[in-house]
Amino acid sequence: MKQLLPLLSLGFLGFAAPVFAQNDYQADSIFIRKIFNTSLSEGKSYEWLRHLTQNVGSRLSGSEGAAKAVAYTKSVMEQEKFNQVFLQNVMVPHWVRGAKEKAAIYSNKVKTVVPIAALGGSVATPKGGIRAKVIEVKSFQELRELGTEKVKGKIVFFNRPMDPTKLNTFEAYAGAVEQRGAGASEAAKLGAVGSLVRSMTTRLDDVPHTGSMRYASGAPIIPAAAITTNGAELLSKTLKENPDTEFYFEQSCETLPDAPSHNVIGELKGSKNPAKYIAVGGHLDSWDFAQGAHDDGSGCVQSIEAVRILKTLGYQPNNTLRAVMFMNEENGLKGGIAYADSAKSKKEMHIAAIESDRGGFTPLGFGIVGNAAQKAKIQQWQKLFATYGIHELGPGGGGADIGPLAQQGTVLLGLIPDSQRYFDYHHASNDSFEAVSKRELELGAAAMASMLYLIDKYGLD
Amino acid sequence: MKQLLPLLSLGFLGFAAPVFAQNDYQADSIFIRKIFNTSLSEGKSYEWLRHLTQNVGSRLSGSEGAAKAVAYTKSVMEQEKFNQVFLQNVMVPHWVRGAKEKAAIYSNKVKTVVPIAALGGSVATPKGGIRAKVIEVKSFQELRELGTEKVKGKIVFFNRPMDPTKLNTFEAYAGAVEQRGAGASEAAKLGAVGSLVRSMTTRLDDVPHTGSMRYASGAPIIPAAAITTNGAELLSKTLKENPDTEFYFEQSCETLPDAPSHNVIGELKGSKNPAKYIAVGGHLDSWDFAQGAHDDGSGCVQSIEAVRILKTLGYQPNNTLRAVMFMNEENGLKGGIAYADSAKSKKEMHIAAIESDRGGFTPLGFGIVGNAAQKAKIQQWQKLFATYGIHELGPGGGGADIGPLAQQGTVLLGLIPDSQRYFDYHHASNDSFEAVSKRELELGAAAMASMLYLIDKYGLD
Repeated sequence: MKQLLPLLSLGFLGFAAPVFAQNDYQADSIFIRKIFNTSLSEGKSYEWLRHLTQNVGSRLSGSEGAAKAVAYTKSVMEQEKFNQVFLQNVMVPHWVRGAKEKAAIYSNKVKTVVPIAALGGSVATPKGGIRAKVIEVKSFQELRELGTEKVKGKIVFFNRPMDPTKLNTFEAYAGAVEQRGAGASEAAKLGAVGSLVRSMTTRLDDVPHTGSMRYASGAPIIPAAAITTNGAELLSKTLKENPDTEFYFEQSCETLPDAPSHNVIGELKGSKNPAKYIAVGGHLDSWDFAQGAHDDGSGCVQSIEAVRILKTLGYQPNNTLRAVMFMNEENGLKGGIAYADSAKSKKEMHIAAIESDRGGFTPLGFGIVGNAAQKAKIQQWQKLFATYGIHELGPGGGGADIGPLAQQGTVLLGLIPDSQRYFDYHHASNDSFEAVSKRELELGAAAMASMLYLIDKYGLD
Repeated sequence: MKQLLPLLSLGFLGFAAPVFAQNDYQADSIFIRKIFNTSLSEGKSYEWLRHLTQNVGSRLSGSEGAAKAVAYTKSVMEQEKFNQVFLQNVMVPHWVRGAKEKAAIYSNKVKTVVPIAALGGSVATPKGGIRAKVIEVKSFQELRELGTEKVKGKIVFFNRPMDPTKLNTFEAYAGAVEQRGAGASEAAKLGAVGSLVRSMTTRLDDVPHTGSMRYASGAPIIPAAAITTNGAELLSKTLKENPDTEFYFEQSCETLPDAPSHNVIGELKGSKNPAKYIAVGGHLDSWDFAQGAHDDGSGCVQSIEAVRILKTLGYQPNNTLRAVMFMNEENGLKGGIAYADSAKSKKEMHIAAIESDRGGFTPLGFGIVGNAAQKAKIQQWQKLFATYGIHELGPGGGGADIGPLAQQGTVLLGLIPDSQRYFDYHHASNDSFEAVSKRELELGAAAMASMLYLIDKYGLD
């Protein structure tokens, strides 16, 4: 000890503040190695995910599954003896799918059944469904140019695919998803009776990918559904052969009154600044017909695991560390909003919030939302992360659930995993436990724990 | 044209040889973008892989499947109108599994059936199988310390797991695979009657992972098999509870006389130096009970695709580009040796050879085997690759099949994909088409095409 102390002091004094002292770099490097080793050899995230996806199952806001997921993740953090585990009340939208949808293409008296899924928030069709001619468009611009005359009484079929040449599949998603979110109202304004959107995936497959939609105020309310990509290809081909092709679909979804639900929060108390917080989270809700393994069971178990690993390694945080399971990201964001509101009213100063909501894939970086100095401070840690293949510190956003904290000056960080497979599973029935690789999940948890550790140790001032 | 030429000339003259001319960087950057766009939006690798894995199926050297794979990949390159497509004769080992293996743990009169797989090259058990007590070891050192007295008449159970804390799973594999390759002879030298090895995977699952083994000269010949990791965990636990536990296994594999087979080669003729070659390849053979999708169907279709993309884009190569499907990587390497022998005898000067044999996962880099100047030249292209997440140019090897070319001064490059999931599927029945992501496969093919283009354009002098 006597020998070490002067060296450490020299290290701290000999460099300007933003430059690492050599001894700290070494200590941090060793500690981060321990974090990764713990996650990869004694990790708990994978078994938690197994339970959350296979035993709890789907957990759309307001559902029984969501309530079970709240109870389960609370019990996990209690078993891990987090200093405090509690629920935060939040009222959430309560949309239900009802009976399984029916759909078919009718052309020249040939009926071809195709899989569809009602979009979250959509209304039902009239009983017996809707059957109408179809108009295919690739953009809102094209739709508007067609005008009421050609659209009225028809089902509008939005068929612009995600651009496969985008390396980052989230960019491809961003370039196509307005069709799902706003398509129905755009179509309804021109007299359409239904809206059908190509599933948001670059794959050609037979599972419909749902997701939320919203009705624009003033526009007529028409039912909206997603068709599989193979179904979309077939419908497009059939329409080219026979413009009089009709599409039939029936769905019985409905929006019930808002329901009570919860965010789930577990804490590791700060030893120096217990009233300052760093949150790490994912969202607990998932679409109703999927196990929600990548979206976002992975982010939830990684967040708990990030805090657990630091606890297991005996790390005494300066600030209070929180694992947060946000409710209702998929169709409302009520949990994220409630969390930020509560933090504000209780004056819980959040230094940073880290979210994982891009799947349990190999981590490649973190998106950062903060000022230039804050970004620069985080980017100094590049070398510590590069050992683990984590190269990208900076570009990209934080996460939907933590977004509302930005107004309070909180730095937002979003884990960036490899995006290539995310939309193979996104909002679809194949987003199951088997689709998640144990090692990839564990690497993500370790990346989050490492970032949590560095921010807690060095702050972001 | 008049305006452009002087600028281009200036570009070439104005810089020292190893530094990029600005115009070339831009041109290369644009061309590589075209390569990736072609692979991601009009790629053929995925459908070829579907056929090779689902229609051709498993293709161990000497099998009917291997012969079909030769015919299929030849026909693909002919359909793509490569300048020349031909077969290269090679005699290969011909090992067959025979009837499905049987195995069980017997402890206190309780019989528990567990899945095993004979190791490639192993002999059969006597008819009716072997039943004997088991001695578990974690290393050859431990085995030798036990000595003949404790080993004689028993089945040696090699149970050292792959180290999960290694970030690169190939390092973890390298640290464990001697148990599979050399374990049987090490055990036999001490009088063991059989050898059982924990499957080479970090997962806990129920599929045995086979692989090749070899008998050391002079050691008695005893049968060898791989047990699933769940089976290994159970056997280890059972042995702790009851050291008199017995293991039974029966297998009827045998080595038949060497069989005639082929490497499959397709060329794009060089316009300047047709007698100089750059090869890009994978191995066509796979283990007998798997579709061999990642190992190495992916490498084969990526290699053909890399050449096809350059051809499709109208690129006129300086040197002759070759896609090579090597035969017999899994249990002999006869194809790789025959290819290098032929190149030597025909004085086909190979500038470089690029192999993909680490699965069809997101590409992260290339391993390079060459001298410092050659590595430095390739590393200059870092920025061109970084756009596509390909950061690692240098560390790591080439590939087994191209290895024999090293003696002729050929620079070897091995595609490095993300390694996290490779050993989930390696040499196991779940290495099927469904385990491959279309986008990941296509990114790998594009990375190989880009490297092929840059080496062809700039050489490696």
